[in-house]
Amino acid sequence: MYADIITIGDEILIGQVVDTNSVFIASELNSSGIRVRMIRSIADAVDDISKTLDDSIQNSDIVILTGGLGPTNDDITKNALAAYFGSRLVIHEESLRHIRSFLSSRGVKVTERNTRQAQVPENCKVLINKHGSAPGMVFRKGKKMIISLPGVPYEMRALVTEEVIPVLHKEFSLPCRLHRTVLTTAVAESMMADTLEDWEKTLTENIALAYLPSPGLLRLRLSVTGSDKKRTENLLEKKLAELINLVGEKNIFGFDDDTLASVVGRLLLEKRATLSVAESCTGGNIAHMITGVPGSSAYFKGSVTAYSNEIKTNVLGVQEHDIQTCGAVSREVVEQMAKGIRAKFETDYAISTSGIAGPEGGTKEKPLGTTWIAIATPKQVISKKFLLGDHRGRNITKASLYALNMLRNVLMQVC
Amino acid sequence: MYADIITIGDEILIGQVVDTNSVFIASELNSSGIRVRMIRSIADAVDDISKTLDDSIQNSDIVILTGGLGPTNDDITKNALAAYFGSRLVIHEESLRHIRSFLSSRGVKVTERNTRQAQVPENCKVLINKHGSAPGMVFRKGKKMIISLPGVPYEMRALVTEEVIPVLHKEFSLPCRLHRTVLTTAVAESMMADTLEDWEKTLTENIALAYLPSPGLLRLRLSVTGSDKKRTENLLEKKLAELINLVGEKNIFGFDDDTLASVVGRLLLEKRATLSVAESCTGGNIAHMITGVPGSSAYFKGSVTAYSNEIKTNVLGVQEHDIQTCGAVSREVVEQMAKGIRAKFETDYAISTSGIAGPEGGTKEKPLGTTWIAIATPKQVISKKFLLGDHRGRNITKASLYALNMLRNVLMQVC
Repeated sequence: MYADIITIGDEILIGQVVDTNSVFIASELNSSGIRVRMIRSIADAVDDISKTLDDSIQNSDIVILTGGLGPTNDDITKNALAAYFGSRLVIHEESLRHIRSFLSSRGVKVTERNTRQAQVPENCKVLINKHGSAPGMVFRKGKKMIISLPGVPYEMRALVTEEVIPVLHKEFSLPCRLHRTVLTTAVAESMMADTLEDWEKTLTENIALAYLPSPGLLRLRLSVTGSDKKRTENLLEKKLAELINLVGEKNIFGFDDDTLASVVGRLLLEKRATLSVAESCTGGNIAHMITGVPGSSAYFKGSVTAYSNEIKTNVLGVQEHDIQTCGAVSREVVEQMAKGIRAKFETDYAISTSGIAGPEGGTKEKPLGTTWIAIATPKQVISKKFLLGDHRGRNITKASLYALNMLRNVLMQVC
Repeated sequence: MYADIITIGDEILIGQVVDTNSVFIASELNSSGIRVRMIRSIADAVDDISKTLDDSIQNSDIVILTGGLGPTNDDITKNALAAYFGSRLVIHEESLRHIRSFLSSRGVKVTERNTRQAQVPENCKVLINKHGSAPGMVFRKGKKMIISLPGVPYEMRALVTEEVIPVLHKEFSLPCRLHRTVLTTAVAESMMADTLEDWEKTLTENIALAYLPSPGLLRLRLSVTGSDKKRTENLLEKKLAELINLVGEKNIFGFDDDTLASVVGRLLLEKRATLSVAESCTGGNIAHMITGVPGSSAYFKGSVTAYSNEIKTNVLGVQEHDIQTCGAVSREVVEQMAKGIRAKFETDYAISTSGIAGPEGGTKEKPLGTTWIAIATPKQVISKKFLLGDHRGRNITKASLYALNMLRNVLMQVC
């Protein structure tokens, strides 16, 4: 069973927005055992939509389109679909009622422009969009299914999980395709490939391993396809155990949708321990990552971003003398920052960072990317120096991840 | 002049990574007057690469491929290209020297796997990859140009700006296509469309307006195409002035690549003023956005994330009585937070936030998304309540943007 995904909108082709919709749809289809053959972004142009639909319908069983259903003049998907299927636009009464009540409940005046959104091609089945005013539409051509969805990400997402996936399961008899992803920090892709090379050669055709690197992280995704769910699950579990063994448990911080922040959060909850953070070079990003996890207020008391030396001394109690003699980016300062925030915020654990994120500020002794990270625990303070790169954004991301990973390692050792 | 972009890699089709490369390449090509006809993501499979190349070469003048050049076994682009162009892989000596010195300088041992990356199809022109080990490659087929680049984003980006764009300008006589983007916060797309509708109808075919909404932001991109650079620039400036007039200057926080954090930073620098932040619901994200701007240490002294009430009282000096009677999400508390951080960090201005980000914590009186934001200045404290939505991540983003925009409005009024 194959699917094509088509994103409609000039904004992607001119490089103004990243297409995050396709990745979400692809992930949902894959979990349902549907392979994505191709993802395409094309222009808001009737001719391009029609030609692309021809090719996709010929090569795949399912075609999912997003975008071009908005209320503005550059949105022409609905007209293009009506023309393609030789249908005409009619008002869909249920959608009209929904749009009116949806907008009124938000105190928005319903305009002529809004009511036009209730028009759909006569030959389609409508999917009501709970989170917005543009409805989803399902068309059929022979045994093929063509589904058009709005491009606003959270509207599209809700329609995919609540409407589209159930419709596809009802319509098609789907194979079983399962994935597990192993998450590691700071391991080079080529070194990992050398470690896993012999094992990879033993994998049969229905098993695939993919390397997914990003700054500070390397994800290893294992996929297994089969006809029987139980047998496929068993095979995946067996191969996953082999992979974990080769990578080494201590190098793995989590699986699948885990993040370092969510893993650290679980460990702190288990220990009923609290955390505070003192950030210099990471500038608030560690706190942002931690508080991105729902429920983090149960263990995270707060943080100080000490971007000036004055805040390091006045608020965190770092000795001015040490900043003068060792520099703000030093073991002495970062350890005092960790101790200082832990005492002030009265937490069990604390993280601190101080580094040269760039693009300015590097010296011969402390080149751009030099970063000190410390962890304060009820018993001790440990610290470590990292040499990151010369890119500000990546340095902030990497330093934040390595800091959370240092805390994770400490928490794993505490019984 | 048309271009196709092809991203190669199973990881996109299975929904594990977002394709950020295409958007960057599309943006660079557009700035050079090259229109992107189609962006495609396809599998790491020789057959798919070959078929897609056929279609792209037939329909576009330039084809740019990324991905599949890594050191691992799932990377097959180089073999596919050699087969497609009837060429064979040979060692490129300069690339080999570069890979050796690149890896040694980072203390990485050079393996057989790394040296294989210096192999390229004999018929291509090599683009040396300063930031990594996989070289870029340029092929020709008749008048068409096909360029293969590594998929690691920062390696690809450097190759595009430093090598690919100059090569294209040398090879093709390019038309002039210019864009300006107007940046606004918190204006609904359909309301803006009503405001601009009549004006949009007057635009000739070589002028396009696109609506680009994202949480808390609405960007309006104006594009003009012409043969003469000066005339195209003049037309764009004229139309931009009309657009600014219709949208209203007070609703516009910046243009093009500006961010609210960079705009606020410029205003603070101009006034030689300093800033501190006290965050509750935004959890460090405002500090993270501010410190993402290079040079922000000149005006940003730091922040406190006060995630527990204890930190709000002990560190920021909020009256415990007010938290008990008015709640942490209230005008009283958020104003005390702003005053408290401003005094403690000795800055000219301060921002504070307190809200219910979700998914838990909403009540009938204070539903999910209720958010108070305050700005403290040398003269006063102002505060405002916002009703955001029910999605944690979007609430954090919106509250951060609205807070920075409130500060911007205050700074614009101060002479």
